[in-house]
Amino acid sequence: MAALEIEARDSSSYARAGRLHTAHGDVRTPAFVPLATKATVKGLLPSEVEAFGYDMVLANTFHLLLNPGPDLIDQFGGLHRFMAWERPIITDSGGFQVFSMGHGTVADEIKGRSPHGEAAKRAGAILSIEEQGVRFRSYIDGRERLLTPEGSMSVQAALKSDIALVFDECTPFHVERDYTARSTERTHRWLERCLSWHREHGPAEQLVYGIVQGGVFEDLRRESASVVAASACDGIAIGGSLGAEKEQMYEVVRFAVEELSGEAHGRPRHLLGIGEVDDLIRGVELGIDTFDCAMPTRLGRHGSALVPDPQTRWRIDLTKSSCRQADEPLIDGCPCPACSQGFSRAYLSYLTRAKELTGMRLLTAHNLTFIAALMSELRTAIIAGRLAEVTSALRAGAPLPLRPPQGV
Amino acid sequence: MAALEIEARDSSSYARAGRLHTAHGDVRTPAFVPLATKATVKGLLPSEVEAFGYDMVLANTFHLLLNPGPDLIDQFGGLHRFMAWERPIITDSGGFQVFSMGHGTVADEIKGRSPHGEAAKRAGAILSIEEQGVRFRSYIDGRERLLTPEGSMSVQAALKSDIALVFDECTPFHVERDYTARSTERTHRWLERCLSWHREHGPAEQLVYGIVQGGVFEDLRRESASVVAASACDGIAIGGSLGAEKEQMYEVVRFAVEELSGEAHGRPRHLLGIGEVDDLIRGVELGIDTFDCAMPTRLGRHGSALVPDPQTRWRIDLTKSSCRQADEPLIDGCPCPACSQGFSRAYLSYLTRAKELTGMRLLTAHNLTFIAALMSELRTAIIAGRLAEVTSALRAGAPLPLRPPQGV
Repeated sequence: MAALEIEARDSSSYARAGRLHTAHGDVRTPAFVPLATKATVKGLLPSEVEAFGYDMVLANTFHLLLNPGPDLIDQFGGLHRFMAWERPIITDSGGFQVFSMGHGTVADEIKGRSPHGEAAKRAGAILSIEEQGVRFRSYIDGRERLLTPEGSMSVQAALKSDIALVFDECTPFHVERDYTARSTERTHRWLERCLSWHREHGPAEQLVYGIVQGGVFEDLRRESASVVAASACDGIAIGGSLGAEKEQMYEVVRFAVEELSGEAHGRPRHLLGIGEVDDLIRGVELGIDTFDCAMPTRLGRHGSALVPDPQTRWRIDLTKSSCRQADEPLIDGCPCPACSQGFSRAYLSYLTRAKELTGMRLLTAHNLTFIAALMSELRTAIIAGRLAEVTSALRAGAPLPLRPPQGV
Repeated sequence: MAALEIEARDSSSYARAGRLHTAHGDVRTPAFVPLATKATVKGLLPSEVEAFGYDMVLANTFHLLLNPGPDLIDQFGGLHRFMAWERPIITDSGGFQVFSMGHGTVADEIKGRSPHGEAAKRAGAILSIEEQGVRFRSYIDGRERLLTPEGSMSVQAALKSDIALVFDECTPFHVERDYTARSTERTHRWLERCLSWHREHGPAEQLVYGIVQGGVFEDLRRESASVVAASACDGIAIGGSLGAEKEQMYEVVRFAVEELSGEAHGRPRHLLGIGEVDDLIRGVELGIDTFDCAMPTRLGRHGSALVPDPQTRWRIDLTKSSCRQADEPLIDGCPCPACSQGFSRAYLSYLTRAKELTGMRLLTAHNLTFIAALMSELRTAIIAGRLAEVTSALRAGAPLPLRPPQGV
């Protein structure tokens, strides 16, 4: 059986709604996948993440390799029992993180920003990129380590994630076309090594996603997408540098998706590291099934809350003076603990400025509730044949039906 | 009606069980009062603190005076609505905190330790102690501020706490008897100024507790207790330097309580800043009704969990190597989220070492659940006339009945 069962397709876009079948249950798609980078959604419990309406979380191979290490997690029979999350888990291969150490953060590079202070201060460092893999210095203990495609797959096998991602080089934004071309070709060779290792040693029930690279170059992206599509992978992730601006990013995603659209059943498609509200709406229209991003959780820890307002990029910064005395909830009628248990914007602003844990937790919960409601709305709209109408309303700032997501 | 309604007395000790009536409901005593120093129990929601079995929390006048300031909280009609906790609140007067700035931390002094690094680095500083009040520099903005007995009461009036504490000098441990005597006399003059301000301007429904000082000197303690008892305060708190060792602390508490035991009905008695497991057991035997302490919540944020083991001071340090691979819960059958939702000691150890918010939250929840169960057990034992038997079992390491506390 195919991993993705498509339940409905939108007539005016590439969007589709479906169910992604994994060893630990189904993921209703399109879906956002909250980050549990270090085996926890920061500040929240698995029971809450599930109650907010999420079916799957994303954990990170690179961080878990360094701490607590795959051996300990293996002793627990895998990540699910270790972190007490019995639903699907996707693991990032570590490519993004290990390459981040080489260039500040790849997130900055992808978005065309200069590396910032915190990134520059990091202890870890990339030592060399070789055909075999990537040599780096651990940010935990300073030891030199080698991460290879086989090594990444073997860690992911120990983690027993439901979906493993192949090890790739996440090409940064500032490099030349020529570097991108050579790097993408190496990523394709690594893809085959990952699949081959997994065929022989990987858990039978673990799905493996290939990763499309190719930078912002149309021909390289299309070529990469068709190479990945021609491989035996179970699903397809789109990664790397997606452009300096959103319109370019959407174009790059379209190049890749168009190369994949010839598939009879359609393998599941994951867009790596993208999760702003407008990007999720557009990504769904472009035929993406799942998304992960630090945005909703990280914004929450730093005092921003998601609201249905495109004029403010769907967020309010609670540290702003306009919030400091505001005696109103973030969103009227929102069922999240921040909105439904009597906390005002003024109080949340105060907690944020005082760096109180409770504030980080409440805003993280709110943002994840908002994104879950958004994804549920998009899914419901696809199934009901109303996607164009719904996305147009959302882009105009229509409030979401902020009920706890139903099992549609 | 007296604030404290005594329901049962133990025949072999000073212990009593009762109900402390406040404007926002009853506190079942003896009770531990978790700290919500900055208007939040760090990492937890009011609904959780209530579900763990707590009737009252303690917030701090000094910190809330500086941030967010009493005016904002007053706009919300007081602290209850601001922090969304509709049950009783006691506010510390700020004396302890302002004097902490003068001597490292008073907590260190009280316990006979030298001021440690973090305290020494603090931006705030005490400038002078005068008859009028205490002049200090704010750790928020560096401004010079004056905190007086009247000022503290007026802030507490704005906070609309159910119980206000009078402004006192928290005499540190290292000072001479002569300083302690003079300081205690000033504290008594400040007591009268606080009561007098409150009579004229304070909220009618707010109870005011006097504070017994007198250091470790028996005559000064007894004198202070009788001065406070002779005042018009609604309840009596015991504060300041209680000795270098636990036995001395218990003696000092006994001096004070004995001076109070002549009262016909008995005003409620609060022991300030004390909350280790053995201290709570002994404090209840000594006739204390309520306790507050940073211990259970602070330990939780730093990776220690409470367990029924007197040999280890009722705690395990999860960062120790013995916990790193331990596939067992903190306490079998404990209903707290850390123990009941499938998290192993190994996972909690990992979260703690990785400084993850979720770990801080889970251990805080566990420790507060443990202390709530302890206090509920002591209260039930007093009512059932079994206190001696129960305290002796607890001191021998008997497990607590870790059910969510019932409304006894």
